[in-house]
Amino acid sequence: MKKLDLKRVIVGLFPILQWSVSYDSGTAVGDLIAGITVALTLIPQSIAYASLAGFEPQYGLYASLCGGFIYAILGTCPQINIGPTALLSLLTFTYTSGTNPDFAVLLCFMAGIVQLLAGVAQLGFLVDFVSLPVVSGFTSAAAITIASSQIKGLLGLKFNSESFVDTWRGVFQHIQDTRLPDTFLSLTCCIVLLGMKALKDIHIITAQDGKRRGPVLLQKCLWFAGVGRNAVVVVLAAVLAYFLHRDKNDPLILTARGRTLDATQEIVALGVSNIFGAFFLSIPVNGSFTRSAVSDASGVRSPAAGFYTSILVLLTLALLTPYFYFIPRAALAAVIVCAVLHMVDIAIVKQLWRSSRLDLIPLFGTFICCLGVGIEVGLICGVVVDMLLLLYYHSRPPLDLQFVNNNDLPPHFAIHPVGRLHFAGAETVRSKLSALTKPKDRINNALQTLKVVSTTPNSALATNCGRSEDNGVESNTVKAPNILVVYCDDVVRMDYTFLQSIKMLVAEWSKNGRVIWCNAKPLVKKQLDNVIQEPIYCESNQLRMFLTDASAVDVAVLGDTPL
Amino acid sequence: MKKLDLKRVIVGLFPILQWSVSYDSGTAVGDLIAGITVALTLIPQSIAYASLAGFEPQYGLYASLCGGFIYAILGTCPQINIGPTALLSLLTFTYTSGTNPDFAVLLCFMAGIVQLLAGVAQLGFLVDFVSLPVVSGFTSAAAITIASSQIKGLLGLKFNSESFVDTWRGVFQHIQDTRLPDTFLSLTCCIVLLGMKALKDIHIITAQDGKRRGPVLLQKCLWFAGVGRNAVVVVLAAVLAYFLHRDKNDPLILTARGRTLDATQEIVALGVSNIFGAFFLSIPVNGSFTRSAVSDASGVRSPAAGFYTSILVLLTLALLTPYFYFIPRAALAAVIVCAVLHMVDIAIVKQLWRSSRLDLIPLFGTFICCLGVGIEVGLICGVVVDMLLLLYYHSRPPLDLQFVNNNDLPPHFAIHPVGRLHFAGAETVRSKLSALTKPKDRINNALQTLKVVSTTPNSALATNCGRSEDNGVESNTVKAPNILVVYCDDVVRMDYTFLQSIKMLVAEWSKNGRVIWCNAKPLVKKQLDNVIQEPIYCESNQLRMFLTDASAVDVAVLGDTPL
Repeated sequence: MKKLDLKRVIVGLFPILQWSVSYDSGTAVGDLIAGITVALTLIPQSIAYASLAGFEPQYGLYASLCGGFIYAILGTCPQINIGPTALLSLLTFTYTSGTNPDFAVLLCFMAGIVQLLAGVAQLGFLVDFVSLPVVSGFTSAAAITIASSQIKGLLGLKFNSESFVDTWRGVFQHIQDTRLPDTFLSLTCCIVLLGMKALKDIHIITAQDGKRRGPVLLQKCLWFAGVGRNAVVVVLAAVLAYFLHRDKNDPLILTARGRTLDATQEIVALGVSNIFGAFFLSIPVNGSFTRSAVSDASGVRSPAAGFYTSILVLLTLALLTPYFYFIPRAALAAVIVCAVLHMVDIAIVKQLWRSSRLDLIPLFGTFICCLGVGIEVGLICGVVVDMLLLLYYHSRPPLDLQFVNNNDLPPHFAIHPVGRLHFAGAETVRSKLSALTKPKDRINNALQTLKVVSTTPNSALATNCGRSEDNGVESNTVKAPNILVVYCDDVVRMDYTFLQSIKMLVAEWSKNGRVIWCNAKPLVKKQLDNVIQEPIYCESNQLRMFLTDASAVDVAVLGDTPL
Repeated sequence: MKKLDLKRVIVGLFPILQWSVSYDSGTAVGDLIAGITVALTLIPQSIAYASLAGFEPQYGLYASLCGGFIYAILGTCPQINIGPTALLSLLTFTYTSGTNPDFAVLLCFMAGIVQLLAGVAQLGFLVDFVSLPVVSGFTSAAAITIASSQIKGLLGLKFNSESFVDTWRGVFQHIQDTRLPDTFLSLTCCIVLLGMKALKDIHIITAQDGKRRGPVLLQKCLWFAGVGRNAVVVVLAAVLAYFLHRDKNDPLILTARGRTLDATQEIVALGVSNIFGAFFLSIPVNGSFTRSAVSDASGVRSPAAGFYTSILVLLTLALLTPYFYFIPRAALAAVIVCAVLHMVDIAIVKQLWRSSRLDLIPLFGTFICCLGVGIEVGLICGVVVDMLLLLYYHSRPPLDLQFVNNNDLPPHFAIHPVGRLHFAGAETVRSKLSALTKPKDRINNALQTLKVVSTTPNSALATNCGRSEDNGVESNTVKAPNILVVYCDDVVRMDYTFLQSIKMLVAEWSKNGRVIWCNAKPLVKKQLDNVIQEPIYCESNQLRMFLTDASAVDVAVLGDTPL
């Protein structure tokens, strides 16, 4: 037994105690650059996501404030940035639409409590039960739902809509009301955003350029412009709107629906961020994959980067809040649409087609359900589809049924089940093996329906049956394979329902034959002993003896009856 | 391709065409005796079950009428008797309570349509997904629910109750209102019923008596009295009530809730019975296990027995209906309670404890849910519990992890996964195998946490590690097992999520070691090719060469670092 190491427990709870002792100026500079870079993405995004959740822009900034501080104290992964995300804002809108921001703040607090409890109870393993195709289908559908919800904003339309289908019906009904200035602004924003994003990927440094200062600086500027694109677009659009004094009615109320997954191991840090955030009027927050990627690319060194980001957010709140009024809704819609478009995962379809086609069912099942009945219900549908597929697999357990008929051993059927055997497959296995005991069908089944491997070419039986399929019936005297050898090497466990099937099966086979259990493990033997009277066990090396004994006593002569 | 054989199809649809051609007087006598015997059980039971469903006694007889005729034409199993059952009557009550019998008749018709459609669509396989422990828990809970619902009748209490908990609360609240005559009558009925049931099991024939006529006749009389006990009790109680002229208020309105399983292959015959039955005012009907057992014990020979039973039902309806008014509710309650008591399956607990303890979870889960929240919801809960258990098993796939360190081969880790590998186990397997790549923990994990089998006693590494557990660190130069051999003999398929875990795993191992895939099947190879760059495949007989190659290139010398 290890002693309870109090220091270790405290450091485990507050990782800042670990990394802060070795915090130096080099790390600080790296974190500062990363912090500022992330803030450039976080601030415009959080303003847009607050609009997505149906609230005024400053709530996005309130939500961005606490995450950085709390995560710097409790978090372990330097890259993670906690703040509003598109999915969570969409979900917040679903549950708080038509209320005031206080409800979103309460939701944030309660979400934090639930996350904290889930973290303490170590429920993170539940995430293992959501497969990647389901996650992918869900994320793609959520991105499309979010993007669709912004079509109104992009075109300057005004109507109420709740779901994906609603939105598109509304767009087509109101398409004649499209406001061209809005459309022009949003299209320009989208083009600028996508164009500036492409800046990041321009490679002007060649291998030999690596040490020349000019190109390196230019490269960094281009990358920085790419990362700061959201801020540039929002600020320019706001300045434009300020001077034009148009778009006087509330430009910020956007609508949408959505949800994200709390899948991190750091669910406690997230819970505390939400709980503390609620005291600073935060809407629910989550780790953002986009911003975490920016943080990583900016060379972040420690969670302290979150401090610097949060300080910038604080400055923005203090100095720029009065000007938020002028941010055009169309510009925010463009920011949101461009932020979520990359979440649509088309590549996975090709990957699944090549590596595991059956997984396309949960993928498209989740995707279609999410778009059709809402993303939360759709996610549950996806998990259920996955479970049904599991049941389907279990209802067809691999048996590897073979008809063994070579000169060394008496002819017999052999099966080699693997893994755990469960109720779902009990009836299939029983009826399949029971069919073999019906004398008429036995050989036909063995060689035709069940696609059995006959191991010796010169077997009289195989020849005989092969011909009987055409029409000829020969009267060669061959032994009917009334012995079933179950190779239990890889059987881990059987459940009660499967055992009862086995019991019935053995009763049927025992009328005219034998079931021999080869290489059964102690647990499996114990299970079999409880349901079968005097099961016949053997090891591989004794099999010949057991087979010869069994066939000498029991084998019927099949040549007497036409096949 | 076989030709469509019209005659065969018609005979398949109407099995009566098959067995009626060879119907002779011997068979007819057997069927007649069985038909009368079954009617003796069916008539009082159907009267009681009609009361259970909340309707007047004649509806039970209406419901018993059609089943026999229809099943004789469409059914294949001579033993089956179709009519009202306790579970189905309970369920009927749940959905038609407070309405008039027309709704029950409509329910019967609609149930028939659904059953017919399910039969045509061959949905019978769905029953495979309900495991025996769930069925057992459900049946026991239903029996207890039904019996509890009759406590009111047994004690002569009057109050409204919907659920199991309601009923017992009501009983304790109204216990002071117990009507002693009712209690006395019902207790007497119960004692008579159970006593007469015991008559069946008295064995007065010894081996040498077998051919003496007297004892044989006596034995048959006893058995017949046992089977006819319900009729005897109901008739005697009605006669008593007729003379005493008490119990004037409606004696028949009983309450309960319930459901049964449509699990037969003969779902079409059942559907048609319900559909036709509806035109004769039938409440929903089902195959009865009790009466089918009676039919079997009476020596039934063909489905024609149903004709005779139905004719007796018809006679009862025509002649005795006026006297139904006098059947005391307490007697019917006694009939119902004694009929369902045997459904409580206690023996399965012992069986599960001995053969498959984990199955106790769905058993008790279903049982408790059925009693707590109602038997329909409880059944669904049971199926969900079973699914969650399947997921739980999948989250811990058997790996059979071994640390192989004998003199023949370079030291390596070997795993032998079996069956289909799914998302639920992806993370567990990845983290378990990933832990082995952490140099510090590798050996410790291998020999302690992971309970690994070291195959050679004289291995320097094993010795070394064994001692390091105490405290000693020796500097023997031993090779770190940075090779993982995955024996794929029994891997059937991996899903996308598992493949992605494998991809990460191979990336981690490839930093300092190798993953070798041994005996992979073509499908598995194809799947691996799609996610891993240049996977290393080999067959068992090439393994030595591959291992030697890999260790010559990559192996780190572990002796340099203290364990």
